[in-house]
Amino acid sequence: MTRTVDLNADMGEGFGAWNLGDDAALLDIVTSANIACGFHAGDWDVMAKTMANAREKGTGIGAHPGFPDLHGFGRRRMDIPHASLANLVRYQLGAAQAMATAAGTKVRHLKLHGALANMASEDQDMARACYEGALSVDPDIIVMVLAGTAQQAAVAELGCAAACEIFADRAYNDDATLVDRKLPGSVIHDPKQAGQRMVDMVREGAIITASGKRIETRIDTICLHGDTPTAVAIAAEVRRALKDSGVELAQFTGAPI
Amino acid sequence: MTRTVDLNADMGEGFGAWNLGDDAALLDIVTSANIACGFHAGDWDVMAKTMANAREKGTGIGAHPGFPDLHGFGRRRMDIPHASLANLVRYQLGAAQAMATAAGTKVRHLKLHGALANMASEDQDMARACYEGALSVDPDIIVMVLAGTAQQAAVAELGCAAACEIFADRAYNDDATLVDRKLPGSVIHDPKQAGQRMVDMVREGAIITASGKRIETRIDTICLHGDTPTAVAIAAEVRRALKDSGVELAQFTGAPI
Amino acid sequence: MTRTVDLNADMGEGFGAWNLGDDAALLDIVTSANIACGFHAGDWDVMAKTMANAREKGTGIGAHPGFPDLHGFGRRRMDIPHASLANLVRYQLGAAQAMATAAGTKVRHLKLHGALANMASEDQDMARACYEGALSVDPDIIVMVLAGTAQQAAVAELGCAAACEIFADRAYNDDATLVDRKLPGSVIHDPKQAGQRMVDMVREGAIITASGKRIETRIDTICLHGDTPTAVAIAAEVRRALKDSGVELAQFTGAPI
Amino acid sequence: MTRTVDLNADMGEGFGAWNLGDDAALLDIVTSANIACGFHAGDWDVMAKTMANAREKGTGIGAHPGFPDLHGFGRRRMDIPHASLANLVRYQLGAAQAMATAAGTKVRHLKLHGALANMASEDQDMARACYEGALSVDPDIIVMVLAGTAQQAAVAELGCAAACEIFADRAYNDDATLVDRKLPGSVIHDPKQAGQRMVDMVREGAIITASGKRIETRIDTICLHGDTPTAVAIAAEVRRALKDSGVELAQFTGAPI
Repeated sequence: MTRTVDLNADMGEGFGAWNLGDDAALLDIVTSANIACGFHAGDWDVMAKTMANAREKGTGIGAHPGFPDLHGFGRRRMDIPHASLANLVRYQLGAAQAMATAAGTKVRHLKLHGALANMASEDQDMARACYEGALSVDPDIIVMVLAGTAQQAAVAELGCAAACEIFADRAYNDDATLVDRKLPGSVIHDPKQAGQRMVDMVREGAIITASGKRIETRIDTICLHGDTPTAVAIAAEVRRALKDSGVELAQFTGAPI
Repeated sequence: MTRTVDLNADMGEGFGAWNLGDDAALLDIVTSANIACGFHAGDWDVMAKTMANAREKGTGIGAHPGFPDLHGFGRRRMDIPHASLANLVRYQLGAAQAMATAAGTKVRHLKLHGALANMASEDQDMARACYEGALSVDPDIIVMVLAGTAQQAAVAELGCAAACEIFADRAYNDDATLVDRKLPGSVIHDPKQAGQRMVDMVREGAIITASGKRIETRIDTICLHGDTPTAVAIAAEVRRALKDSGVELAQFTGAPI
Repeated sequence: MTRTVDLNADMGEGFGAWNLGDDAALLDIVTSANIACGFHAGDWDVMAKTMANAREKGTGIGAHPGFPDLHGFGRRRMDIPHASLANLVRYQLGAAQAMATAAGTKVRHLKLHGALANMASEDQDMARACYEGALSVDPDIIVMVLAGTAQQAAVAELGCAAACEIFADRAYNDDATLVDRKLPGSVIHDPKQAGQRMVDMVREGAIITASGKRIETRIDTICLHGDTPTAVAIAAEVRRALKDSGVELAQFTGAPI
Repeated sequence: MTRTVDLNADMGEGFGAWNLGDDAALLDIVTSANIACGFHAGDWDVMAKTMANAREKGTGIGAHPGFPDLHGFGRRRMDIPHASLANLVRYQLGAAQAMATAAGTKVRHLKLHGALANMASEDQDMARACYEGALSVDPDIIVMVLAGTAQQAAVAELGCAAACEIFADRAYNDDATLVDRKLPGSVIHDPKQAGQRMVDMVREGAIITASGKRIETRIDTICLHGDTPTAVAIAAEVRRALKDSGVELAQFTGAPI
């Protein structure tokens, strides 16, 4: 049986005069792009350009909403009521849909950004509020979730289209949470190691933790980064290793969990 | 023959903790609402609430995009390239569409706000860039234009669905431009006078200028304001006078010009 | 012995086209004004006008920095490193100083706003980081703190000029924290009751809790509000009751704790 | 007689997660730094870091206020009343002063940024409004102006401390305006050419136009850029050429015009 997996990365993270990340390099590597929607990064012009480039490459387009915190790049936790979070996701998704439509393409998936994602991976009610916001705008949108977290539980509860994601460059604890960035070995810097881990996890259909434990999970997509030259090298090597091992790279189908 | 006209007003112009205007009063008067989209006023929560209220009243919903200038309420002229203006309109329209969809309704029309509108009423290319942006997102959207300006020329050129608007409370020059606010008599403060003018203009199908000249024009909708108690009184009286004179109040159909 | 106390309130909380609160009424009541600095509310024009009005009335001027969150009015908790909080306080204080200098007056005190204040009242290190930021800009600035909280502990530790504040319209628990807003009786709505409480607390030099317990504390200033007609009525009555009972109303001296 | 000239460049133009320009390289080249104040670029953390670095190098520190337009990097013309412009300059200058004080240094000069500078170089009243705003905060601040423009006329009229600036990499018309960027030869890309031009202009005390005409002017400082590798190479070569030709590099004194 051929295994298939999607590769995703955040893109369109510039704002006005500022650029961030190597989108051009990533577009040759990934099959899905999570495009910032103007609240933590991205603006109408960056979105238009990123959508057009993604369309040209055939890359799947996702809305990547975040907290309304340009200065903090959406990485600072904010205390916002669930009803307002649902509205904030709707607004950003709608903006992304319009930019996609104008570029002759469409938004296929949705992935939460930064602190909004982190909080939603710990709080199922909060995750559900965000996803219900998105589904009230597009009932068919595929919700990308962090495998093994409250995000996944929320989409399972909702029964909506979904894609389960693992990280290429982060070590896992035995409860499927990520090893704290402050601990040694938490971030994988070696492209070969990152590539081999992803081949193993995709083949086994399991998260392999730092201790070697297997946590069975659906793996639909792998999260890559492009904000440093090392990150791009890891991304490229993960792609190469997967292809060499016979894994097919293709957009996730969005089957419900 | 029964004359029909629409009454429109800007709404949803609060932001976060701040309110502006008496939306509740206006919703009992107008047939169409121009809802701010978050750039010059409005936010995701204000939009959600305003859309829900408009839907309940059966009021036609319009996206009301403006310059990205919260501090200046979109009233300060900004020098932005046409391609970026098109993107900025797309983004705001998309956000409004999503909020409308989530509220069980839809965006019917688009009207430019403040300095963006003023500049577009003088510059047909700029108007066209904005409207093409909107039409690339929704080819059926009805574009509301200031009668007799470059805005109207732009929609005539585009052949899109359109609605021509006149002002209830502003005096006109003989070339269909508005009398400068600094001049005496430029703004009509007397509700009775405003009401009678509107009855006359709608019946005659013409703008009646300060000098008494008639400029024939299609009149689909009348712009009202709700930001002061006087403005609401004028709005209410215009409605009353039109009804009393046998004019039917209903949403514009959007017939192309 | 004559008791003396200061009355303070937040002011200048408009932004651009939006107004909030009845500053004119408050300026006739309070002796010190906490002026928003542009991050959660206020802008350069609002600040200039508010400073000029405060100067004319002889009201003591304070900088009132908040989180960089215009949409949330600084009321949403944000997770920001202490070093950045110190910079954020410096920036806002400096802006306020410049507006004051240009208006022919000066910034006498500093009071944290909203969620920034709430978090600092629970976290002495965070409070200290904010106050050290302010003191690095003006070593003589008087830091206004919530009596009995970590804010007070921080200024005691720093040995800086200080003013201890109690609330006119909020009930206290026996540990000097405020009774949760969701509980009955947490907010005092009756002007007479608010006035009498303040007279009693100032006379006794103690917070009187909901259960009747006395917590001895220095009381330099009373926090009033002006965002509703009721709030202004309470503020006016507190002022009247204090004067009638022989308490002198005057700006705090800033003696260290 | 030894000629002396200052070299200045814009710095601290990052925002949050975004960086822009090579400040570290520029700090080894220039004698004065124009530091963004948070409206078009820069934030409290970037300002703190940039001020600390400039202080360590002994670089003269300037406030570099711009339009409130983060998305447009302050490069889009905006239509703002003069009284509001004065407030906007005061606010940004005050913020910069506080960050400088906290970093153990001070703001020596002020230079307008982007479209605000361009508009002020064409409109003496507007320039005067901005400079009066700055002088009302610090009467001793040195105002840096574009030689030969309405900016210079404004400081001459005000009699304040001043520094006259020429561009290293832009060709001049015979009326001292800059050659339009769209025309060939308008921007100098060759470091050697840029260096030789600056040596010639400083020695002759004149702007040398594209046609070879000399326009006598006081030259206190030369504007360099650091936003591209080429720009840094030009900056380094201008410095080298001036030193080799015996011109002393030092901060301007600020003598009134």
